[in-house]
This record gives sequence, structure tokens and C-alpha cells, in this order.
Amino acid sequence: MSEQVRIVEVGPRDGLQNEKTPVGVEERVAFIEALLAAGLHTVEIGAFVSPKAIPQMVGSDEVLRRFSSRTDGEFHVLVPNEKGYEAARAASAKVIAVFASASEGFSRANINCSVAESIERFKPVVARAKSDGIEVRGYVSCVLGCPYDGEIKPQAVIDVAKILWDLGCYEISLGDTIGVGTPMKARELLRAVAGHVPMASLAMHFHDTYGQALANLYAGMEEGARVIDSAAGGLGGCPYAPGATGNVATEDVVYMLEGMGIATGVDMAKLVEATNEISKLIGRPPLSRVAAALNARKRGR
Amino acid sequence: MSEQVRIVEVGPRDGLQNEKTPVGVEERVAFIEALLAAGLHTVEIGAFVSPKAIPQMVGSDEVLRRFSSRTDGEFHVLVPNEKGYEAARAASAKVIAVFASASEGFSRANINCSVAESIERFKPVVARAKSDGIEVRGYVSCVLGCPYDGEIKPQAVIDVAKILWDLGCYEISLGDTIGVGTPMKARELLRAVAGHVPMASLAMHFHDTYGQALANLYAGMEEGARVIDSAAGGLGGCPYAPGATGNVATEDVVYMLEGMGIATGVDMAKLVEATNEISKLIGRPPLSRVAAALNARKRGR
Repeated sequence: MSEQVRIVEVGPRDGLQNEKTPVGVEERVAFIEALLAAGLHTVEIGAFVSPKAIPQMVGSDEVLRRFSSRTDGEFHVLVPNEKGYEAARAASAKVIAVFASASEGFSRANINCSVAESIERFKPVVARAKSDGIEVRGYVSCVLGCPYDGEIKPQAVIDVAKILWDLGCYEISLGDTIGVGTPMKARELLRAVAGHVPMASLAMHFHDTYGQALANLYAGMEEGARVIDSAAGGLGGCPYAPGATGNVATEDVVYMLEGMGIATGVDMAKLVEATNEISKLIGRPPLSRVAAALNARKRGR
Repeated sequence: MSEQVRIVEVGPRDGLQNEKTPVGVEERVAFIEALLAAGLHTVEIGAFVSPKAIPQMVGSDEVLRRFSSRTDGEFHVLVPNEKGYEAARAASAKVIAVFASASEGFSRANINCSVAESIERFKPVVARAKSDGIEVRGYVSCVLGCPYDGEIKPQAVIDVAKILWDLGCYEISLGDTIGVGTPMKARELLRAVAGHVPMASLAMHFHDTYGQALANLYAGMEEGARVIDSAAGGLGGCPYAPGATGNVATEDVVYMLEGMGIATGVDMAKLVEATNEISKLIGRPPLSRVAAALNARKRGR
């Protein structure tokens, strides 16, 4: 397993969007800068969503404008509908992300429509993005379990992933939104989906709610997956278990990859510094075990 | 991977021994009872060590006396030398554990003698135990890295593991004492040691300091290892990084195994209850991510 792995840092979006304390535009820009300085390249930096529903993402247009012409990174923004798309395009987005759920229950609870309706909703977004030369990444949520529907069949994931792929998404990110997956199930899911979408175009977006994320990522890598979504400091939490862990921490992923001889280009000290800064702003210690251990060692000295 | 996995619960010893706040004998007995009630069977319950050096283990003779004649579990105690052996035997120990380090630097710092000297020290202990019909488990510490010597060669682990095995230990527990291991290294180590000690007699004792433990356990299981040491609530911390995570949490291990279709016989709710009780006594929340998530969900209700 010496090949390259691509990390998609989702802390500034999927992370901060799910933190109680909203972080201002300037602080988010500083956070993104710190992540780039630490060696991360692909960063999801905002979402063009309803400011009422998700105040944490207010000002995403301003954030995007600071980065959209930069060539030292790849900057993603989440876009749920055509209104969001207009705003993202106006802020010169080069890559947008759309999302669907593998679970009917989650789709209804989260965006108040069926999975099929949600697909109809982002179809024109993807079509316009393609004609505007904007790349589209597709998220599928609840791929290993749903807080409402419980177990999710791989076929449900395949169905949605295939639609996103056929519409023209360049990569499909498979989200274990509530972190209930375990290694063999993660591996089996990747194998199943890879029968319909090339493995190289599948990303693993695993939450660490039950501490399983790294084991699941390792299992997925054994199956051939090579793209990992993670959030600095394990930002994000879990809306379905407030106080629990969120996205798998970038630090913990980087530690594993480097230990496996896979170079990430990430400067761990700088990454932990970025995490510590944002942790101060949201008012809780980092959930990354690597960050906690390195901070503890520093205090011990 | 549908075979059985054996869990050795080390919370009451390796866990509590490394917690700042000592827990009294009655409270430790209650904790062990709670662990048994949760379905755990093999439990390391104390250590016959210097009360000055490790006050947390004072009263281990009393703890052991409560359990030594019980048939509803298997109870281990750590024994560093002949003096400790006398006391353990007097309290009717049926299984004792001895330990050596794969690292010279750790051996010197931890027990103030070379690895070879430490082996000479427990040789008579193992010999006497065998003639007394007491079973002996052997620990090897620092198998994936040392806080003093850095990287540890698999051959150094093999050398010590083989000595313990040849002396008559029924099982060798390979300890990633400072949690620096990563999956492929863990797997390679197990493969190397299994060339000299049967895989069925190797236990994985991995700390979660850098969040890698579950991934390492999964990798070790793929190599064929089937014995896992863990501590309820991730008790134990790391003396080399105060504030960091300790032993891999039994809850997180059980969650992974059950998710893989491997029945553990553990009642998760009862286990988390046991963890919550001991966590109150030592004055900090559980480090287990499963316990944290389940507690959070309970609060959220």
C-alpha cells in the first residue's frame, strides 16, 4: 500500500457546520490558510445553504472569493440547489459538491424530501455546472446506517452513487454520517459500489462517532480505496448524539498513513496548531487523539 | 472472520494502575463485579507490586481473595518478582502475569534493569508457578515503539516472546505500550512473532494514544490473531503523554467485533454502566468513543 492517498479536508464545512458555536468569516479564512500552510491541498471551505437553517455557513461567498482564484489548493463548496449554485458561481466556484442520501428516512428528516426528489433537485445544478465548466463532487450520506431507517442495504447506496456518477460527478464520497460502520461492512460496501463506479473515484467519508473510522478506512484501503475525507481536530460532532465525535480527525488519518509509509505532505505540528486555534474559537478541546497526545506531550515538557 | 475472539479485560489493573486517582479495594471489587455482570470473563484484577511505587494497586491481595475461588471468570494478577509471587500464591492466584520489555531503554527506565536481568528476575517466578500449578501469561511491552529507544525491531520482540514461551507461558501479550503502532506494522509484527510462538497464543495489547488501536487490532485479526487486551472506558492514560488516551476501550473493541459478526457475549449497556461508575470515581469522563456516544444519546433523549 505505498501508493498515494488523497485527503479531502472537510473541517471548514462539514466540521464547522455541525459545531454549535458559529465561527466568523475572517476566522474561517485564517483556519483555511492554516490548513493550507500545514500541507493540505483539497479543502471544502463553505456551503451555500440557508443562513436560517445553518448560520455557521453564513458568508461562504466571501470565504470562497478569497480562495477561488488561488492555485495553491483546490476549494470545494457545498451547493444544495439552484439558488445556492447561482451564488457559488457568482463567487467563482471551481468545484461544487451536491448531496443525496442512501436512506429515505434521513432524506425526509434532513432535507424534507424523498431521495428521488432530492436527485431531481440537484439534476439542474449538475447540468448547469457542467456547462459552466465547474466540477461536481457527489456525496451519498448514511451509507452504512441511518439514524431513522437503521441498516442500509448496499444496493441503496449503489443506486444513488450510480445516478451521481452517470450525471457526471467526478468523485462520489460515501458518507458514514453517523459513524456506525465497522471494517468488514465498510470493505464490502466499497467492493459493491466499485462494481458500478471506478474505485479511484470513490471517497471514504467516515465519521468517528463509535471510534471505528480509522479501522474502516484501513479496511477500505485494503479494498483499494484511495480518497479520504477528514476534518482537522475531528471537528463536526454528531447531531444525532450531541457530545459524541464527529468526522474522523485529519491528524489521526495522517498519522496512520505516514505509519504505513504513505507520504501525505502534511506537517503534523502545523496541522495541530491549526486545530488548536479553531478549537479555542469553538470552545472545546480537539477530538483528534493525535492532537490530544501531542498537546499532552507538549504540556508535559 | 467469524471465529471467536477472546477479550482480556485489563481495566482493573493496567487501567487503574495508570490513573492518577487511586480507587479503594471495595470500589475495585464492585468494578470487577460489574465487568463480569456485563459478560466479560477474563479480567486482570490486580498487581503484587510495591505499594510505594504503585499505590493504586494496594490491596490487590484482598481483591484477589474475593475472586480466586470463583468459577464464573478467570482472574489474572501481575507479579513482578518472587516476593509478589509469594503474596499472589497466598491469595490463591490461579493465573499470574509476568512482564518484560522489548526495549532496553524502557526496561531501564521502568524497572531499572536490563531486559536480560528482568528475565532472570522472573525465571524463578515462572518455575515456581509451574510447579504450583499456576498458569503464567507473559507481557512484552514496547513492541511497536519505545518512548526512549524509538523504533523497535521485530527481532527484539521475537527474542523476548520466545523466551517467555519457552519458559512455559501459555500466552504472550504483545504490548504497544505507547500506542505508536499503525496497522501494517502491527500486522507485520504479528506475522513475524507467529513464526516462533503459535498465533493462537498471541494477544494484542494495543494502546490508543494516537487513535490507531482499533485499526491495528483489525489488521492483526486479518493476520489471524484472536486475543485482544482492552480496558473498559479506555482506562489507563499514557504516563508518557499525560492527558492522552490509554488502553483501547473494551466498548470500542466490542462494537467493532459485533459489527463484524463476532459475538462477544458482552452486554454493551451494562459495560457502559460499569465504565460510568468507575469514571465517576476517578473523576473524568470515559475515553471510549462508544461510551461517549451512548452517554450522549442518553442525555439527548
